Amino acid sequence: MVSIIFVDESFRSGRVCWIKDIVVAVTAENMEAMRSIIQRYRHKRISLAEAGATRHRSIFNGLKALAEDQPDVVIIHDAVRPFVEEDILLRVVTAAKEHGAAGAIRPLVSTVISPSADGCLEHSLDRAKHRASEMPQAFLFDVIYKAYQQCSDYDFEFGTECLQLALKYSHTKAKLVEGPPDLWKVTYKRDLLAARSVIKEKISQEICVVMNTKDEESAGHLLKEVLKKELNCVNVTSTVLDHTGGNVQKFPTDQCYSFICVNVVSSEFQETQKFLSTLEESGLPLLYPVVVVLVHCCDLTLAPLASKMESLMWIRSLAEDMKKRNVLLSGLLLNYSKDEQKLQESFQQGASIIAALVKERSSALAGQLLLA
Amino acid sequence: MVSIIFVDESFRSGRVCWIKDIVVAVTAENMEAMRSIIQRYRHKRISLAEAGATRHRSIFNGLKALAEDQPDVVIIHDAVRPFVEEDILLRVVTAAKEHGAAGAIRPLVSTVISPSADGCLEHSLDRAKHRASEMPQAFLFDVIYKAYQQCSDYDFEFGTECLQLALKYSHTKAKLVEGPPDLWKVTYKRDLLAARSVIKEKISQEICVVMNTKDEESAGHLLKEVLKKELNCVNVTSTVLDHTGGNVQKFPTDQCYSFICVNVVSSEFQETQKFLSTLEESGLPLLYPVVVVLVHCCDLTLAPLASKMESLMWIRSLAEDMKKRNVLLSGLLLNYSKDEQKLQESFQQGASIIAALVKERSSALAGQLLLA
Repeated sequence: MVSIIFVDESFRSGRVCWIKDIVVAVTAENMEAMRSIIQRYRHKRISLAEAGATRHRSIFNGLKALAEDQPDVVIIHDAVRPFVEEDILLRVVTAAKEHGAAGAIRPLVSTVISPSADGCLEHSLDRAKHRASEMPQAFLFDVIYKAYQQCSDYDFEFGTECLQLALKYSHTKAKLVEGPPDLWKVTYKRDLLAARSVIKEKISQEICVVMNTKDEESAGHLLKEVLKKELNCVNVTSTVLDHTGGNVQKFPTDQCYSFICVNVVSSEFQETQKFLSTLEESGLPLLYPVVVVLVHCCDLTLAPLASKMESLMWIRSLAEDMKKRNVLLSGLLLNYSKDEQKLQESFQQGASIIAALVKERSSALAGQLLLA
Repeated sequence: MVSIIFVDESFRSGRVCWIKDIVVAVTAENMEAMRSIIQRYRHKRISLAEAGATRHRSIFNGLKALAEDQPDVVIIHDAVRPFVEEDILLRVVTAAKEHGAAGAIRPLVSTVISPSADGCLEHSLDRAKHRASEMPQAFLFDVIYKAYQQCSDYDFEFGTECLQLALKYSHTKAKLVEGPPDLWKVTYKRDLLAARSVIKEKISQEICVVMNTKDEESAGHLLKEVLKKELNCVNVTSTVLDHTGGNVQKFPTDQCYSFICVNVVSSEFQETQKFLSTLEESGLPLLYPVVVVLVHCCDLTLAPLASKMESLMWIRSLAEDMKKRNVLLSGLLLNYSKDEQKLQESFQQGASIIAALVKERSSALAGQLLLA
């Protein structure tokens, strides 16, 4: 039985099924906010412990919360390292079972030096002989709980390293496990910017093209192929939906946050609304904004552009409503020309526009009718 | 006289006027590419030295390139730290003049540990007593040049710390200077993502609203006020231009990469083209893409939307042409309603759209006619 303690007020390992309990250390003033987050995002298996004034006091409170259940192994992790993957969690747990304690390490990015009292260089450490100690760390529950029970006030106030406590008080030499770069701490403003980009990239890894025909020559299939080329690291799937009121249940909503509906026609307001309702009911837009692009194909040499745009104005009002529900809806008018070269250019431009809408997920641009 | 050596193939300190020479260490196979970058971006004061197989060999080659000129002080910097500011350069130079050597330091983000031969924890260092050694570092030229002249092969192959060489061979104890967080190394993919966001944020710090009237009640002034509120960390300035062919020279092009032209009317194709030419001639789009939004205000209850859009279609073809010149042009149709509430909503939405275009600088969305 493995439990995990998060030092700080966020967590993301609900998706690892072999972790039984998740304890989050939260300061008293944030306890209510945390409870509402757990409820709103439907997190499971979580209990809260009160955070202490220092890192070690928070961890000790987390351990006490688990003491009655006595898990075999406990993982300690920082909430400021939100991109931890299951693989490294498994590796530290396996090493902890064998050695009693284990922690992730990384090579040093900068040389470490020791300054003299007057702020000058005393000596510099050999970079090859040292490592940065990162999180997660895992311990046999007894090893780390006993160590914390023996901690001095000095340890509680000034200590930073759990592995050191296991060594000092439980005489357990931790195994060091080389971790991936994803374990970085979100510390400075630049880290927040990076974290936002990493998440945006992650949720844009899959695009579903929704079509109303299986015909391999259709606009939907053509667009899917161009999208695959334009976004070569993105998984472009497709599904056929009966737009005229059939089964809208069968689209893949698990890790897919972007839907391109091809061949939406002017009269399909109600069908689109039904599709969007199903999407909303799936709970998908709860955590991240979902991008939906309604693509209307027509030969612009036959129909005047202005009237085409006018007939699609219902997308604008629908989009305004959907924005409140975290769904970013846009319209895309694609010139389905008889001229082969013009057709290719138009699909190419359309794919670039879709890529930008998917990657940037900008709510300010929802509700626009774009033209390719 | 101060010189600077960049270890690696990029640099950004051309903007610091008291630096006389800039030496960039470049590998033989990248020498030609570097020469064309210098020419293309019109960099001044730069000479190239051949990079060696290790960091210390590259630095030594850079120092040799300066040996004839014998600068008083030399700064050594990493190109992977592109966000260095003038202030920290000045502080290390001042400290180097007094102490012979100086380098920027930062607090450690993670605890540093020393592993045993079998990959277990040997001991952990007290985080409070150690610092990360960062760049830039500055030296009296003689101090660092003599140190490199005495370096052993082992130093050249495995050393990472210039301050250590100054201590070992020139008996100079470097002054350590607390640096800002901007000195981070662009090392991993997440750092590239962060760097891109930091640059985008930096070039979006200033927006210029270009108007054709001084009238305080005009749409331009109203939009400027709404933009100021929407983007409260951005400096929104304005300039009055005679759209009908007057002086288009007087817009501020120094650090401003975003222009919002208000009250562009359907017939103003030529005037807009003149404005864009002046922008291009200023050299501004050379380094970063410039965003230009042409705002057309009209009461949509009086004019049918479709015909309005049709009459602004020239923006699309102009945008296609400008994209090749690194200028991202879009049109924005703003509903200038007589209904006060609708007017406010429309300006509010317009400001959000402009903010998204400025912040995201997406070339795929250039050429679109947006609606607020």
